[in-house]
Amino acid sequence: MKYTEFEIISKYFQRHQRKNSNEIQKGIGDDSALIKILDNNVLAISTDTLVEGTHFLKNIAPKDLAYKTVAVNISDLAAMGAYPKWTTLSITMPTSNSVWLKEFSDSFFDTLNKYNIKLIGGDTNRGPLSITLSIYGTLEEKTALLRSSANIGDLIYVTGHLGESAAGLFLLQKKIFLKDLKIRNYLIKKHLHPIPRIYEGINLKNIASAAIDISDGLIADLNHILNNSQCGANINLNKLPISSILKENFKKKYYLDWALNIGEDYELCFTISKKNIPKLDIMFKKFLINCTCIGYITPLEQGFHLFYNEKEIFLKKRGFNHFN
Amino acid sequence: MKYTEFEIISKYFQRHQRKNSNEIQKGIGDDSALIKILDNNVLAISTDTLVEGTHFLKNIAPKDLAYKTVAVNISDLAAMGAYPKWTTLSITMPTSNSVWLKEFSDSFFDTLNKYNIKLIGGDTNRGPLSITLSIYGTLEEKTALLRSSANIGDLIYVTGHLGESAAGLFLLQKKIFLKDLKIRNYLIKKHLHPIPRIYEGINLKNIASAAIDISDGLIADLNHILNNSQCGANINLNKLPISSILKENFKKKYYLDWALNIGEDYELCFTISKKNIPKLDIMFKKFLINCTCIGYITPLEQGFHLFYNEKEIFLKKRGFNHFN
Repeated sequence: MKYTEFEIISKYFQRHQRKNSNEIQKGIGDDSALIKILDNNVLAISTDTLVEGTHFLKNIAPKDLAYKTVAVNISDLAAMGAYPKWTTLSITMPTSNSVWLKEFSDSFFDTLNKYNIKLIGGDTNRGPLSITLSIYGTLEEKTALLRSSANIGDLIYVTGHLGESAAGLFLLQKKIFLKDLKIRNYLIKKHLHPIPRIYEGINLKNIASAAIDISDGLIADLNHILNNSQCGANINLNKLPISSILKENFKKKYYLDWALNIGEDYELCFTISKKNIPKLDIMFKKFLINCTCIGYITPLEQGFHLFYNEKEIFLKKRGFNHFN
Repeated sequence: MKYTEFEIISKYFQRHQRKNSNEIQKGIGDDSALIKILDNNVLAISTDTLVEGTHFLKNIAPKDLAYKTVAVNISDLAAMGAYPKWTTLSITMPTSNSVWLKEFSDSFFDTLNKYNIKLIGGDTNRGPLSITLSIYGTLEEKTALLRSSANIGDLIYVTGHLGESAAGLFLLQKKIFLKDLKIRNYLIKKHLHPIPRIYEGINLKNIASAAIDISDGLIADLNHILNNSQCGANINLNKLPISSILKENFKKKYYLDWALNIGEDYELCFTISKKNIPKLDIMFKKFLINCTCIGYITPLEQGFHLFYNEKEIFLKKRGFNHFN
């Protein structure tokens, strides 16, 4: 079935959304959306494009694509400690397939509703499949978790486990194999349904010094913090939070590479002053969240070093810029 | 030459931009941008994707593509009466061609600087050429020019001339021909370099009742005002602002169709109460802007009618929704 742009928008994307504030003064349906930002708040804006073949596999289910598009964008706001609130969706499709659109839009709105995010605009276009989402959040002025505020002596933490999303991707790509269907599906779900650490980010705002979400692999992303904060770091690879599922099913050289270099875990990597550790412990117990100390921040001139069994490890692929 | 995403961003898109406010608390280089909206202001957000082959021709010059991407997005804010301030750019390209990137990014920043707009984020991706721009502006609360506030008896105006952009497009597509190179280039420029009516929009805020920018053709776009305001309209086609260039070089049946149905003029169509006409005259004289009254708003039940030489005209293609 073929639809015009206006038909697609009104049929699939102009849904009734629970209203919870008077911040949206104009949503979909005019030349622009109009948003009122509350006093003493700042607006956080992040945008990400997902392109078929580059960011997602050709045969991805529309519902998984919709979920992941929203989740990876929310993750950027989580890393700032912002509350996600609004989004705009630009979707480019080769044809207007009603089965695809129904599954995509149902999952898209389910995910938005779960995080209480409202769709306020966007457009639909004809062309090779790609999706650009911009996501808007708010946070109290001067509270954002920046990449640039790590301090020497801070401890480095990550939330959750690393490397499972990479395992899921490689299973989908048939680069690796697993007989156990339950474990296979678990890992694929970790790849397709990463959980953005939005509540963790909001709660870390007052205790962490710097944060980033792990989209490109721990090494590349931690390196953004080091570059922006002009620091070095020592990381103990024995401490990396690797799940027992990865440890029991794959060789060490694989899961360490996945955790360090592949990314798409969408966990948070953050730095925190030692004096705030008691607060961190209380918070993470309250929210039942795993978080693991993997190292500490050093002066810039000491560089970025990885240790395994107390010996320094040199990786071929690090995504480094200024330490090469 | 091949670049990584980070190299492309730092080489072409992370330029020094004149700073004129403390509204940007964080620009490019963290997980999200952070923006402070001034008190009593609201944020206007608009987003548009341009796809190769759908929105622009395959052989378009990168500088023209960059200009047009910015201009058509600004036009949406112009139709709200907002001041354009910030933008995010998501660009998807098949290869990272340094000649293309230099020409595109030079023109992109030239256009942003012209309108005092700052790039605050975005991403670059590999894939079929397409560009998504989101543009952000501000305006004083409760002053926006909405599509929904036209009133019965209001006069309907358009700025500038209509139909020249369509002529330029058809010349580029070789669907029509012109021997006169000067006129040919003038019309092509009207298509490639539409001027967003940002100052007109800002100044119309206090005197017009409703507005829209003409991107899909006068009929389709005026119809959005009528649908949103629950009104009808009578339009006198003899009054359509058609330039002497179109009248002297093309048949009436062509230029009327271009003006009514093709769009991409990015002029404003607005409605205004008769009592505000003296203010409109003063404003348009001051800014040396053409604007032409083409009809008036009627009650919903009277419908949408077009007249030419005092006879009603029925068009095959109208983009209508509720008057069919």
